[in-house]
This record gives sequence, structure tokens and C-alpha cells, in this order.
Amino acid sequence: MSIFDERGGEYIKKINDAAKSYLEKSAFCGRESSGLEVMLEAMRYSLENGGKRIRPVLTLEFCRICGGDVEKAIPYALAVEMIHTYSLIHDDLPCMDNDDMRRGKPSSHKVFGEANALLAGDGLLSLAFEVLLSADDEPAKLVRAGAELAKAAGCSGMIAGQVMDLKNEGRKATLDEIKATDKCKTGELIRIAALLGCICAGATQNQIEAAEKYCAGIGLAFQIVDDILDVTGDEAVLGKPIGSDGEKGKSTYVSLLGLEKSSEYALELTENAKRNLDIFGDEAEFLKELADKLSTRRN
Amino acid sequence: MSIFDERGGEYIKKINDAAKSYLEKSAFCGRESSGLEVMLEAMRYSLENGGKRIRPVLTLEFCRICGGDVEKAIPYALAVEMIHTYSLIHDDLPCMDNDDMRRGKPSSHKVFGEANALLAGDGLLSLAFEVLLSADDEPAKLVRAGAELAKAAGCSGMIAGQVMDLKNEGRKATLDEIKATDKCKTGELIRIAALLGCICAGATQNQIEAAEKYCAGIGLAFQIVDDILDVTGDEAVLGKPIGSDGEKGKSTYVSLLGLEKSSEYALELTENAKRNLDIFGDEAEFLKELADKLSTRRN
Repeated sequence: MSIFDERGGEYIKKINDAAKSYLEKSAFCGRESSGLEVMLEAMRYSLENGGKRIRPVLTLEFCRICGGDVEKAIPYALAVEMIHTYSLIHDDLPCMDNDDMRRGKPSSHKVFGEANALLAGDGLLSLAFEVLLSADDEPAKLVRAGAELAKAAGCSGMIAGQVMDLKNEGRKATLDEIKATDKCKTGELIRIAALLGCICAGATQNQIEAAEKYCAGIGLAFQIVDDILDVTGDEAVLGKPIGSDGEKGKSTYVSLLGLEKSSEYALELTENAKRNLDIFGDEAEFLKELADKLSTRRN
Repeated sequence: MSIFDERGGEYIKKINDAAKSYLEKSAFCGRESSGLEVMLEAMRYSLENGGKRIRPVLTLEFCRICGGDVEKAIPYALAVEMIHTYSLIHDDLPCMDNDDMRRGKPSSHKVFGEANALLAGDGLLSLAFEVLLSADDEPAKLVRAGAELAKAAGCSGMIAGQVMDLKNEGRKATLDEIKATDKCKTGELIRIAALLGCICAGATQNQIEAAEKYCAGIGLAFQIVDDILDVTGDEAVLGKPIGSDGEKGKSTYVSLLGLEKSSEYALELTENAKRNLDIFGDEAEFLKELADKLSTRRN
């Protein structure tokens, strides 16, 4: 078993255990028998619907390589994953992307109805801040992490990306427009995931800059690979139908650059991203492997 | 001019000015010309659509009577108002209450479309935490305030109330069920508004308990008056159609207790609420007048 599989597996177990326990502890405390179970179930359905957990893994590993205590970083990691999960629930709603499937299962509103899906998303967004700000850590770190998280998730970050994405629908966006959209829509949460690990560890400014550059590279590569898989992927492995970008008439890296150039670009971004980690020496092995795995993934 | 009108006017001006400046500063920093104006406009439309500002006024006044600096409490107050505003935008959406009008103007999704309204709500929720956690105050206070705010806004608080409200639709709820719903759905944000003022001021436990009891009383009275106005109100003054509760077949205080008993109950709650303020002596005048105004309001 490689260091990546071993440590990655440990991280994912920590995150999943924490998600389970926080949901039980924080949501509907003392109200389990009053008909609110549907909301707890809806939040759990999406939060536990095993994604790749890339963001919280980044939080924990950046905390570790910056010299911090991984256990302390768990609420930071979970907060980011909760925001990621809320954004997927809202993105799938009929008034947004209107997607019926998510990770091979019916999306939240198909199972719980639109109103409950909307509220489950709202609930996870609030719960993210509850989990982070209730953590047992120095207040100054928590305040900084919370402010940065709110900014990255909000209208200067992820939501700006969602607005740009809506604007790009049904028209031919340029490469620069797609990159700007992805930088906000998915890039900001990947960046903040690493940054929160750094903040928890009390990282230096140099370490933070390295983390942010690494994330910018793997984040963009991730989106390019997404577009490639939408053309070349295996539906059974992906857990969602392929060809959806083409059907929607969306501009993608593949439609603008072609398959070959897109693949080359993703690999180049990945190599550059990895080079930013040199300041961490041998300790960077896990994150370099993560970058490689993401650029060669099949789902 | 009474102390209530004078100080209340000052508070509302402070809040409106802060709302304007935070929206400009925090949202879309440096991206004003990239087509994201619609989101800024949508957030501003709802945030500046002059509500009564009861919640942020409570924050500022409780800060003052607990011996704090009102200027310091402005970001706390604005954070609560942003969460209130987001909840109204999402509540009005077609999948929720499907309300076309809000405070005499078309609701957000009627003006900006459903997707933008959804995102404007999400954006305000994140911005609330950004504003609060970026405030110039002691980190320990900000962390406590943020954790309490997240809890009150989330699944143990306001969202629990929204879920109960959905559950009550199309069936006859009991008085206890309605009270439990209102305690969460509207009561939690009123409570947290006062609590945040107390936290900002470094209030004593006694002061906090008095604030919470006062808020529980005026919060419930507020809802009862809402139900009364839905039967006896003047549409032009209210800014929304009357009779909507009856049309939806909702159980209300009026349908369960009758008009007269409902009015008596609202007055009794208001008197009891005011008595909790005795520990503040003469300084409580403003909040006592606020309680009276809310129970005798016509819109």
C-alpha cells in the first residue's frame, strides 16, 4: 500500500466519522422525535454520499506538512466539505443545473423534494460555520479561518463562479471566461481547503503561498479532466451520463482546445503544481501523488 | 420626538449605511465589471428593501444597555439582518411559500429569476459570516457570536422552524405545534439578535437571560399580531394581500384562539416580556416602547 493510499484512507475515515458525529450532535439537538428527521436524513444523504473528499484531505495534509496537529484540523476540514456538499445540492436544483443524478444516486431534490433539498443546503452552510467556530482551537485562528471560508464560499468566491457559469450557458464562452469561472466556482473551495489546514497549523506566509499555487494548478487541471471525461469517460465508472456538456452547448476545454491539447494542458498544470511543493521536501510525497491521481483519474 | 423614534432612527441609519458599504466592499471585490452586477443588485434589492430592522435594532440596543460600544456592534447587527434577508428570499421561492410579493414589492425571484434569487440568498448567508468575522473586535467574542449565530440560523434553529412549517401545511396544527414552529422559525433570529448585542458588550449571564426572555415574549407576540393582521389588516398598509393564511388552510393563533383571545394573549406576552427588563432600570425605556409598538403595529 502506498503512502497515498494508507494516509488518504486514514484521512477519509477521520472525515467520515466526524461528519457522522457532528450531524448527530449538532443538528436538531433534542428534537429527533419531532418530525425533523427528514432534514437530518437529507443532510446526511448528501454529506455521506461518498465523494472523493479531496478538499478535506487537502486541509488535513496541509495542516500536517506545515507542522500542525491533524486532529485539530478535522473541524476545519469538515466545514469545507459541508460547504462543498451544500453547493452541490443547490447546483442540482431544477432552477440551477436541473441534474437528477449525483455520484450515481438520485440528487437530493429527487429524493426529498425541492423544499427539503433547498433547506438541507442552507442547513449545511450554516452547520459548516457552527462546526468550525465550535472547534477547540485558538479564537484568533478560528476567526481568520471563518472569515476566509465565508469569503471563498461567498460572492467574491464560489458564488461568483456560479453566477458566471449561469451567464456562460447557451453561449460560446472563451477560454479565459471558462478559466475565470472555474477559478471561482471550484478553485476557491480547493484553495480554501488547503488554506484552512495552513491556518490551523500556524503556517508561514511562504508555506501558504506554496499551498495556494499548488491548489490553483490542481484545481484547474481537475476541471479540464472533468471535461475530458465528459467526452471519453465510462458512464458506469463516472456515475453520471457522459456527453452532457455537448448537449447543453457549453463551451469546455475540450471544445475549445481539442482532446489532445486539453490532456497536455492538464499534465502541464499538474507538473507545475507539484513543483510548488519543493519547499516541503520529502514530506510533499502525498500531495504530489494526489495531484497525479487527480490528473489521471477515470471518475 | 420620543426616545424611541430618535434612537431608533439613528440605529436604522447606521444599519442601512453599513449594509450599503459592506455590500460594496465585500461583494465581488474587483469584479464589478465582469457581469456579476446582477448578484450584487439582487442582494442589495432585498437587503435594502426597508424592513422594520427589528433584529439589528435589538442588537445595537442590547449592546448599549449592557454597557457596550454601539459602533462595535454594527457588524453583529448587520450579520443578523443578512441572515434574516436570505431566509426571506429563500422562503419566497416557488418551491417554498411561492410568494410573489414581499414588503409591497415583487419578491427576488420575480425580479431576478429563481437561480439568481437562490444564489443571492446563499450569498447573503455567507456574507453574514464574512461581515461578522471580519469585524474589529476580540476574537473570542467573534467566535462565540459566530457559533451562536450559525446555530440559531441552522438546523437546530430557524431551519428547524422552516421544516416544521412545511410539515404544518395542509393540516390542522395544534397551538403547541404552532408555538414550537414560531419559536424556531422567527424566534431564534430575534433571540440571537439580542444575544449578539450582549456578547459584543460583554454582558453578564443575568443580562443575557433577561434579554432572551424578553425576546421570547416579543417574538411570539409578533407572530400572533401577524396572524391578527392577516385577518383584520389593511392591504395598503401591510404591503401584502390579507387572508392568505385562511386560503392556505393554515392553522393560526386566530383560527385556534379567535381574534379576541389572540389579542389578549399578545398583550399579556408583551407585558411579561417588558417585566424582564426591570434589571436595566430606566435604560430599558426604548426596549419597552419597542415591545409596545410591535404589539400594536398595523403592518
